[in-house]
Amino acid sequence: MSKTDPGHYFEDFRLGQTLHHATPRTVTPGDVALYNALYGPRFALTSSDEFARACGLELAPVDPLLAFHMVFGKTVPDISLNAIANLGYAEGLFLDAVYPGDTLTAVSEVIGLKENSNRKTGVVYVRTTGVNQRGRAVLRYVRWVMVRKRDEAAPIPEQATPTLAPAVAAGDLVLPRGIDFSRYDFALAGAPHAFEDYAVGEKIDHVDGMCVEEAEHQLATRLYQNTAKVHFNQYERAKDPTGRRLVYGGVVISTAKALSFNGLQNAGMILGINAGRHVNPYFAGATVFAWSEVLDKADLGPCGALRLRLVATKDRPCADFPDKDETGAYPGEVILDFDYWAAVPKRG
Amino acid sequence: MSKTDPGHYFEDFRLGQTLHHATPRTVTPGDVALYNALYGPRFALTSSDEFARACGLELAPVDPLLAFHMVFGKTVPDISLNAIANLGYAEGLFLDAVYPGDTLTAVSEVIGLKENSNRKTGVVYVRTTGVNQRGRAVLRYVRWVMVRKRDEAAPIPEQATPTLAPAVAAGDLVLPRGIDFSRYDFALAGAPHAFEDYAVGEKIDHVDGMCVEEAEHQLATRLYQNTAKVHFNQYERAKDPTGRRLVYGGVVISTAKALSFNGLQNAGMILGINAGRHVNPYFAGATVFAWSEVLDKADLGPCGALRLRLVATKDRPCADFPDKDETGAYPGEVILDFDYWAAVPKRG
Amino acid sequence: MSKTDPGHYFEDFRLGQTLHHATPRTVTPGDVALYNALYGPRFALTSSDEFARACGLELAPVDPLLAFHMVFGKTVPDISLNAIANLGYAEGLFLDAVYPGDTLTAVSEVIGLKENSNRKTGVVYVRTTGVNQRGRAVLRYVRWVMVRKRDEAAPIPEQATPTLAPAVAAGDLVLPRGIDFSRYDFALAGAPHAFEDYAVGEKIDHVDGMCVEEAEHQLATRLYQNTAKVHFNQYERAKDPTGRRLVYGGVVISTAKALSFNGLQNAGMILGINAGRHVNPYFAGATVFAWSEVLDKADLGPCGALRLRLVATKDRPCADFPDKDETGAYPGEVILDFDYWAAVPKRG
Repeated sequence: MSKTDPGHYFEDFRLGQTLHHATPRTVTPGDVALYNALYGPRFALTSSDEFARACGLELAPVDPLLAFHMVFGKTVPDISLNAIANLGYAEGLFLDAVYPGDTLTAVSEVIGLKENSNRKTGVVYVRTTGVNQRGRAVLRYVRWVMVRKRDEAAPIPEQATPTLAPAVAAGDLVLPRGIDFSRYDFALAGAPHAFEDYAVGEKIDHVDGMCVEEAEHQLATRLYQNTAKVHFNQYERAKDPTGRRLVYGGVVISTAKALSFNGLQNAGMILGINAGRHVNPYFAGATVFAWSEVLDKADLGPCGALRLRLVATKDRPCADFPDKDETGAYPGEVILDFDYWAAVPKRG
Repeated sequence: MSKTDPGHYFEDFRLGQTLHHATPRTVTPGDVALYNALYGPRFALTSSDEFARACGLELAPVDPLLAFHMVFGKTVPDISLNAIANLGYAEGLFLDAVYPGDTLTAVSEVIGLKENSNRKTGVVYVRTTGVNQRGRAVLRYVRWVMVRKRDEAAPIPEQATPTLAPAVAAGDLVLPRGIDFSRYDFALAGAPHAFEDYAVGEKIDHVDGMCVEEAEHQLATRLYQNTAKVHFNQYERAKDPTGRRLVYGGVVISTAKALSFNGLQNAGMILGINAGRHVNPYFAGATVFAWSEVLDKADLGPCGALRLRLVATKDRPCADFPDKDETGAYPGEVILDFDYWAAVPKRG
Repeated sequence: MSKTDPGHYFEDFRLGQTLHHATPRTVTPGDVALYNALYGPRFALTSSDEFARACGLELAPVDPLLAFHMVFGKTVPDISLNAIANLGYAEGLFLDAVYPGDTLTAVSEVIGLKENSNRKTGVVYVRTTGVNQRGRAVLRYVRWVMVRKRDEAAPIPEQATPTLAPAVAAGDLVLPRGIDFSRYDFALAGAPHAFEDYAVGEKIDHVDGMCVEEAEHQLATRLYQNTAKVHFNQYERAKDPTGRRLVYGGVVISTAKALSFNGLQNAGMILGINAGRHVNPYFAGATVFAWSEVLDKADLGPCGALRLRLVATKDRPCADFPDKDETGAYPGEVILDFDYWAAVPKRG
């Protein structure tokens, strides 16, 4: 038997199958520093131990997206090594804060399998859970990917397409344990805008633009131990029509989220992922811009939550909020449509 | 009201105004590792906890320039988002060592305002103080920047140009608390040169050259949470005559300071900034060289201090000490003229 | 006397000479994070504190190669600043695990000197020892480099070529103190392959390819405080026929070692370096591939050890195991031939 891991092909998956992913990972202050250097986030709660303590936490938690990328990275060798495309995310919940020193592992359940009519590929749906060293789930999400078949003729015994919630219900959101925004320092956090100040339907252009270099997305993606070949193997990618390494979609999400500080200064803490699609590929060297739309609001008691749509573009400022058209088709410059819940403090 | 921060324009500043800058930042060993990876400094005191302990400190302090860049970064959204040029630094003092685990905030006072005769821009002078989690000032400096006016016709009620000291007086320098160079290990630090070995007027070519890549200056500048658009937004910069992202001047300072190890091996610890100017822009890809001149010496009792002029160039070795001419004009290859005080151990 | 360190020329070395290298270095979680971001290793033992504890260690040790590069880096200013080529490694032993928080220093003994017949250069052999803050040797290795003479006419008083072992004897290998693989979790580590599953002569194509960017190798090499000019000084390198900065060989070793996870998932822990040669230069932008051959096996009692040959190529996949020919000549695409021992758990 070859000791090299070929990854799973579509016919290797089974409905209900559980995959325990390899390489447990201790998150450290070094990872956080790299996350900061790679994206430049400025959300106070994840930037300062003192600010976090004033909000009831023991120290600054890591950005939920860093935890997400690390858990995601673990699933790649088992789920998407032979993937053609990462199709979407849904039902994402951040269940507990992750702190430097925590060790993450990941497990996935196959919840859907749908062969494509060409019989060359199929769509695999997995529900992945990230677990910390105390056995506690810290995040959970569904993603679906299009995966190649090894053998076109291979039969797929059981198929099913899961029914996924269009959005996480506000009642299912979980705040980081101990969090208390009653002493939240809006000025120190960079803006006075509280939960009450955002209106459903409001759109915000985040103005700033950020270029991502090849070295940067590679550093990020390796940090997450995400091994997908398309991000690193230029020799192979040179044969692709684009000729380029593809940037891991998570880099786009984190870049756009960091840009969103400008307008959503107090909405750093992602609580849930409702939906997400990488609607066009992003290659290094283009400048990422972003805008957001407030889709919904929910009063969680101790704080509010905003349901936000984060749209990112490449080489296209967002003053006019570039968007899909009435047929659902996106302009070529739009690269991300990401729908999430974030905690936002209420006015004191 | 827009929730996007447009930054301040010249007419928004008032003499005596105090600006409390956003995003407190806990400095971590991860930030230090990135600082090392970005510049390659080899000064023993900031490289080794053991060496630092032998010098009376609890552990290795972070490079004073890392603390400086972090404090500087916080001021950018309020001071220089709409700046055309960062004109200079003066009266910089490092008041206490910063250690991993410390959390920095920053506050600035507007100490000068001078509208330019074209009425389109003005010069803003601020005195910025970095403060740690114990409320203790760790560094303080003056910088002045040329800032755009939003509205040419806007009147500027009160103007004044501050009188700035040409250099920090040696008597004002503050050594890191507890520091004791009596057991300083010159061999381990890399060179035998003590305070006594340096002569006023002495020039040192630092010989080595260091190229900075786009990814590197972006990583550095984001690490400092410095959001100035010129460093990241290639889409916008493509419209500039240079067509290039501008490298944050602090990257040039830190690169040149790291190069200065070769000749100033025991002068790593900056105590004060007398003056500093980015005399020409630096773009990624050029190789940075540097030379130093000993401008002054001061015996601080437990150790000495050298007043040093650090001149950096791009694509121009410094064996012949490229410098401004008698009219004060700099050759195009000179990018930095930085005047600072550094602690240097005396011979045992 | 110039305060700039010119490095040693061949005639400056003496047989038996001891060189205490400068700049002690505390290894931190930040260094580990950068190591992960730069190479993407996925070996469980160095990735997870929990996994390491389950294997009897106090926390995850740093990758032995990170310790090696840091020790190596210290020797560069004294040994190889004027080197033309790094010719080889031998007799490398990792004597104790290095943990975040440890401080490393390095000392070298000159064990061989051989002037070349052209009298312009000579080969210097040094045995270097890395020592931690408790004075304990953590690693030791021999390397030899070709160094320029300052003065062709300078006589070389004493010359000798050391006799080096073709490989480290298995009996000399030292396991990290406390290590215990009896509860080793193969599934969590990513593969079921135990010591018993590897056969002498077995070859493994590691399949994946990894491109290294200029920014990446510079970040790595500066992190190790390795100052060799060829890696950073593009202005100078532009005069070389290649016109390119040369990538530090250690970057190639670590990149290839990280790639080797795919097939050697449980052989992350290097115990010894038998031999190593950078057989062709590597420049940024090419994609690194690698394959391994099992050269020998040794039962160390509590675990096994595999003697592995790691061959890396540039822009050349390794499905057909590109290798030297019968005359010992390497194809131009082969960049590394590295022979080492690694610990591998036995089946429970």
